[in-house]
Amino acid sequence: MTEDWRDAADQLARTLRADAPHREQAAAEPEAEVALLRASGLLTLLLPASAGGRGAGWLAANETARTVAAADASVGHLLGYHYLQLWRTELFGRPDLVERLHRDTVAGNLFWAGVSNPLDAALELTPVEGGFRVEGRKSFATGASVADRLVVSATRVDSGQKLTFVVDAHAPGLSYLHDWDNLGQRLTASGGVVFRDVHVPDEDVLGVHDETSVRASLAALGFQLMLAQIYVGLAEGALTEAAEYTRTKTRAWTLSDVDEAVADPYILVGYGELVAQTRAAGALTDRAAAALGAAFDRGDALSEQERGEAAVTISAAKVVATRVANEAGSKIYEFTGARASANKYGLDRFWRNARTLTLHDPVAYKAREVGAHFLTGEPPRLSGYS
Amino acid sequence: MTEDWRDAADQLARTLRADAPHREQAAAEPEAEVALLRASGLLTLLLPASAGGRGAGWLAANETARTVAAADASVGHLLGYHYLQLWRTELFGRPDLVERLHRDTVAGNLFWAGVSNPLDAALELTPVEGGFRVEGRKSFATGASVADRLVVSATRVDSGQKLTFVVDAHAPGLSYLHDWDNLGQRLTASGGVVFRDVHVPDEDVLGVHDETSVRASLAALGFQLMLAQIYVGLAEGALTEAAEYTRTKTRAWTLSDVDEAVADPYILVGYGELVAQTRAAGALTDRAAAALGAAFDRGDALSEQERGEAAVTISAAKVVATRVANEAGSKIYEFTGARASANKYGLDRFWRNARTLTLHDPVAYKAREVGAHFLTGEPPRLSGYS
Amino acid sequence: MTEDWRDAADQLARTLRADAPHREQAAAEPEAEVALLRASGLLTLLLPASAGGRGAGWLAANETARTVAAADASVGHLLGYHYLQLWRTELFGRPDLVERLHRDTVAGNLFWAGVSNPLDAALELTPVEGGFRVEGRKSFATGASVADRLVVSATRVDSGQKLTFVVDAHAPGLSYLHDWDNLGQRLTASGGVVFRDVHVPDEDVLGVHDETSVRASLAALGFQLMLAQIYVGLAEGALTEAAEYTRTKTRAWTLSDVDEAVADPYILVGYGELVAQTRAAGALTDRAAAALGAAFDRGDALSEQERGEAAVTISAAKVVATRVANEAGSKIYEFTGARASANKYGLDRFWRNARTLTLHDPVAYKAREVGAHFLTGEPPRLSGYS
Amino acid sequence: MTEDWRDAADQLARTLRADAPHREQAAAEPEAEVALLRASGLLTLLLPASAGGRGAGWLAANETARTVAAADASVGHLLGYHYLQLWRTELFGRPDLVERLHRDTVAGNLFWAGVSNPLDAALELTPVEGGFRVEGRKSFATGASVADRLVVSATRVDSGQKLTFVVDAHAPGLSYLHDWDNLGQRLTASGGVVFRDVHVPDEDVLGVHDETSVRASLAALGFQLMLAQIYVGLAEGALTEAAEYTRTKTRAWTLSDVDEAVADPYILVGYGELVAQTRAAGALTDRAAAALGAAFDRGDALSEQERGEAAVTISAAKVVATRVANEAGSKIYEFTGARASANKYGLDRFWRNARTLTLHDPVAYKAREVGAHFLTGEPPRLSGYS
Repeated sequence: MTEDWRDAADQLARTLRADAPHREQAAAEPEAEVALLRASGLLTLLLPASAGGRGAGWLAANETARTVAAADASVGHLLGYHYLQLWRTELFGRPDLVERLHRDTVAGNLFWAGVSNPLDAALELTPVEGGFRVEGRKSFATGASVADRLVVSATRVDSGQKLTFVVDAHAPGLSYLHDWDNLGQRLTASGGVVFRDVHVPDEDVLGVHDETSVRASLAALGFQLMLAQIYVGLAEGALTEAAEYTRTKTRAWTLSDVDEAVADPYILVGYGELVAQTRAAGALTDRAAAALGAAFDRGDALSEQERGEAAVTISAAKVVATRVANEAGSKIYEFTGARASANKYGLDRFWRNARTLTLHDPVAYKAREVGAHFLTGEPPRLSGYS
Repeated sequence: MTEDWRDAADQLARTLRADAPHREQAAAEPEAEVALLRASGLLTLLLPASAGGRGAGWLAANETARTVAAADASVGHLLGYHYLQLWRTELFGRPDLVERLHRDTVAGNLFWAGVSNPLDAALELTPVEGGFRVEGRKSFATGASVADRLVVSATRVDSGQKLTFVVDAHAPGLSYLHDWDNLGQRLTASGGVVFRDVHVPDEDVLGVHDETSVRASLAALGFQLMLAQIYVGLAEGALTEAAEYTRTKTRAWTLSDVDEAVADPYILVGYGELVAQTRAAGALTDRAAAALGAAFDRGDALSEQERGEAAVTISAAKVVATRVANEAGSKIYEFTGARASANKYGLDRFWRNARTLTLHDPVAYKAREVGAHFLTGEPPRLSGYS
Repeated sequence: MTEDWRDAADQLARTLRADAPHREQAAAEPEAEVALLRASGLLTLLLPASAGGRGAGWLAANETARTVAAADASVGHLLGYHYLQLWRTELFGRPDLVERLHRDTVAGNLFWAGVSNPLDAALELTPVEGGFRVEGRKSFATGASVADRLVVSATRVDSGQKLTFVVDAHAPGLSYLHDWDNLGQRLTASGGVVFRDVHVPDEDVLGVHDETSVRASLAALGFQLMLAQIYVGLAEGALTEAAEYTRTKTRAWTLSDVDEAVADPYILVGYGELVAQTRAAGALTDRAAAALGAAFDRGDALSEQERGEAAVTISAAKVVATRVANEAGSKIYEFTGARASANKYGLDRFWRNARTLTLHDPVAYKAREVGAHFLTGEPPRLSGYS
Repeated sequence: MTEDWRDAADQLARTLRADAPHREQAAAEPEAEVALLRASGLLTLLLPASAGGRGAGWLAANETARTVAAADASVGHLLGYHYLQLWRTELFGRPDLVERLHRDTVAGNLFWAGVSNPLDAALELTPVEGGFRVEGRKSFATGASVADRLVVSATRVDSGQKLTFVVDAHAPGLSYLHDWDNLGQRLTASGGVVFRDVHVPDEDVLGVHDETSVRASLAALGFQLMLAQIYVGLAEGALTEAAEYTRTKTRAWTLSDVDEAVADPYILVGYGELVAQTRAAGALTDRAAAALGAAFDRGDALSEQERGEAAVTISAAKVVATRVANEAGSKIYEFTGARASANKYGLDRFWRNARTLTLHDPVAYKAREVGAHFLTGEPPRLSGYS
């Protein structure tokens, strides 16, 4: 197929970038943004052509999420997680259900989100005739309140088993707390979700959420990788927006020997250092995406050691991307100068977004994983974060 | 005299710290804050006992500004600049006028600010009978709109000479734009000032604002030093607030081997690194304050080389304080964890304040000054920033 | 063709690594090392199968140089430059001569080096019957004294034109100063070369060394890229050797809570950070190698803008590789502990090699290039270093 | 008293600096260096005037060690440890013995060293008539083989008690292994010592080496502080020597826009950054020296909390000094350029010395101490390293 998805991604990025500071400061529920995603035709990028999707594949989905994140990190986050949720449905050995979900998604141009914060086990499943009743609440459910379909994890009250299922985001009994009021990623609708007597039929249950299954546990790696993609996008976006400012508004410093800011030796070297680091982080993250794609393609033959190699590549990418996203978000001001701190420019969104999203799980433990694997060959333990 | 000023400073800091996040987010004109400064009895700290001041001296003023800045960087900034404005009036060889200003300040418990952005030469003085008429506008006049008295620099239309004078902040013809809407230091009232037919009598003119005078040019160093003090205070404040959060709210990471966050090896070492750097920056800034005090005390005997030594010590302090203020403001989140990014905690004010205030003038040119002096013995050129 | 070159590279690396510290400390003329290169069969890796070479291509040559550099950075340097010299002969539009050189190289299993320090213009060509007489000396000619053939640049005394030619390294009149006594890369034989009445026939002249030719100037980029490859190799090698030490010799610190060094949280995170950065630098350097390969393949159609993109990718790779090579070379000691500073372990060779080789040309100017291109689109100027 | 000790220290530093690279590369037993120390008159700097010493005090001893270390880090190390050994004799409550040692030191212009590596418990004391017999060996006894007197710690075979005593370095039964062959600090004679039937009379026993005694345990802090002093000296020395090279030998880079290296913007800013950090580390180390002096002066009234404050200040100083010593030692080459890597300049000694000496005990655990104290108020545990 042609690479027209790349044009669509670029077009969407341009549109989002044009008013990103204002939308970010308004911090409204991201309904307009989801509408843009729908209109872009990119929601079906990952789905097979056989199901009516664009069939562009995993790497295209990763690249698209990063491109969009560079323009608007919240929307890149929403789109990346949408791809992730669809992708992870294939890890449960339910090809029939997956096929139905794909068809529904194409037919309805559906937007997906998830409800599965691993640190929050407060959702309960009670077996009822033909399925389960869901009760409880979960926090930090990125995108859920603006989604059409949700992938949800919850615990059976009878057996303690953790199941993953899909549910219509507008199903009776579901409500959203709209309580995401945080430093960054403001347009990600990452608030809490309440389930009151929500019914889930058996046929919508994907399967057991088994962190000890080598294949099923690829889901956690997908989240880690997608976070790294957004971080790289954030660094790219920060540098792009700052460069625009430097070119058009920054004045040469009064004690410098140059006539314009773009000739200032410290501004030039400052951009150069960060661009180099961002490109290195991007190159490693591309490699991580390929590694996870290959691990996925191994199917049930995937060994823990092979999974571990992919996991460590992803963690390494996340470590360097974390560093450069935060550093770029803060350093750009040294290249734009004092006047760029006016709120009307909103250049702080890059640091706020990076700072917030890179706290998802502590980066020191990612670096530790990489170090342990390098030193002793030990693969990361299977967990919700590794 | 006793060191009760230190108790007063600590008390003021405690009061400010208690509701700093809320006041900072509200970003109101800092009238309540100036009232607290007045009530603290600290406005006369620097003034000689002979004039009714507390006579605590230059180092006490520096320490107090830093202590207050650690609690609320905007208020520390206002107070530090208040001291600076009073201090710099002594650089013009007008002891009579200085004495009057001191007495008035004690009598009225006056709060001082300045109007003197070196990059903005838009204020004009026209000689009139017995003085001057002032016309024009200046931007970024920290504290002016909430001050009682202003120290102002402007240019004579007839001779091009730049004069510095004092004026009542409520004088007829003076108005304030309230246009400071920036990322950080939100409570510093750093907006623009408009002069429309403001009258300044000859006796309120301090003298020529002469950047080529070794002694007069100490004023620029005073600003540089006070900025470094606020930066150190910002780093101290960030670490103090974050530590409170870590102790009381942060949960041990799920993949760590510890039971509580205060035992996490990466959190401990992270604080340790930043505390060590902050203390080093503080120690050097103390030395810089002493150097400037000594240079001031040399009076007209001060040589350019001696001034240069003080200038370079101040620049060195500013370089290390800039780095640690920005780094602490951002890194603390890695010690508090993701939930600390909720806006209700307002922990981002440290990075926002540091990022904004450290843009005052580009730090690379400060490091360059230090390097040039070290390599070749060359003293920094006299300027509004060095 | 099969990838048996990779096995050969790994075998060579193992052999070199086994006694690398001792050979490095002895710092003998690297004759034994060149003999190993010859025996490895890797000298013809880059040459086309049609000429009897292994035909493995540019990326394989890059990978091999890096693999060998990780084991012994001097030998990796010699081998990488050997590939470079052969590769750059193709930039002059002399396919006939290139074909002869290829055949000779295969037939004689020849080792190549160069004499072309851009900062040193002290070699003169005087036209004589059927060719030129070469007189003068050049410094820092890596590998020349142990090579079979040399690629040399020199200046015509009559026209001032700079020509590049090939010459037998043992030709009459050639002598070697053996004056390379530097901190690192001790086994690279990077001393001076003296030409006394050396004859070069016309048919051995590759052509004009034209820094203003877009295609010909790819040579400079080749050197820059190969340096980045060695830097990445150095970082990899440092971490590999240090890890071996940590695993087998480092004792748990007395004030730690762990029983063995491989469980120390700071050692683990320290390795992890550096491994992540090294992998990122490696991924970007791979991308740079591909970019230069593609630019080469464009032939004379290559535009300055396209060349600039490749140049900037290479510079970015060099910036990040420079940083990590030096940092890894120094930091590893924090993971091995004090006893590893005994000279018998020779772990300092990584820092010494990295420190020495990364001075080849100042990294700040590489970062500046990257920054200028990002900010303004300006391609790096064509030079001996960019 | 006059400050002629400062002149003596400067004179000694000048003498040492003149041939430091050559002496360091020769790595002979530092007998000539100890002779210089003796001739300088600085060995009695710390001793009270009442005993015939110079009575310059603790801070003067610290400053002198740092000044000498900047010129020659090995000799600064020897001198600093000499002061330390004399100083710590006062921690045992044996004023009579201390007085005798002082008088002997003045009379003989004696040089002191120690034998007390805390990680090496291989020295045994067997009670005999009137004293003890000492048997065993200790490693890493800096300066012992060139000393006149030693302070030694060893373990009683009968009670397991650890005692500290003094002994003539030339006593029968004592021999030196001369096995210090390490990366840096080559002139410190830090080899092993063998005791074969060495007799120590009761009157030469200082007392129990009690790590749990708040006062006695100040000895460990003394070592930590003195290490920080040497690190600061190393950074100062590296910058001073490099600046000399840059001024006199470095050529402007061919792609720069400047005519001489001292005008290169990146060289200037590079020096400036490191000078600033070095000065900050120096200022904090001065504060640490004062803190330990004050703790010492508290005598037996010293509380664990007070000791902890001093310990943490020292650890903080050591953390920042470690960083800048290693960074300066490596970075200076970026300001001197490639030709400075020639071995004849010996500029690598700064990195080698810093790298070696900063491994004394892991800096991460020092940062951890600082962090723990800041977070929880917990004082460092009493140990041989804290």
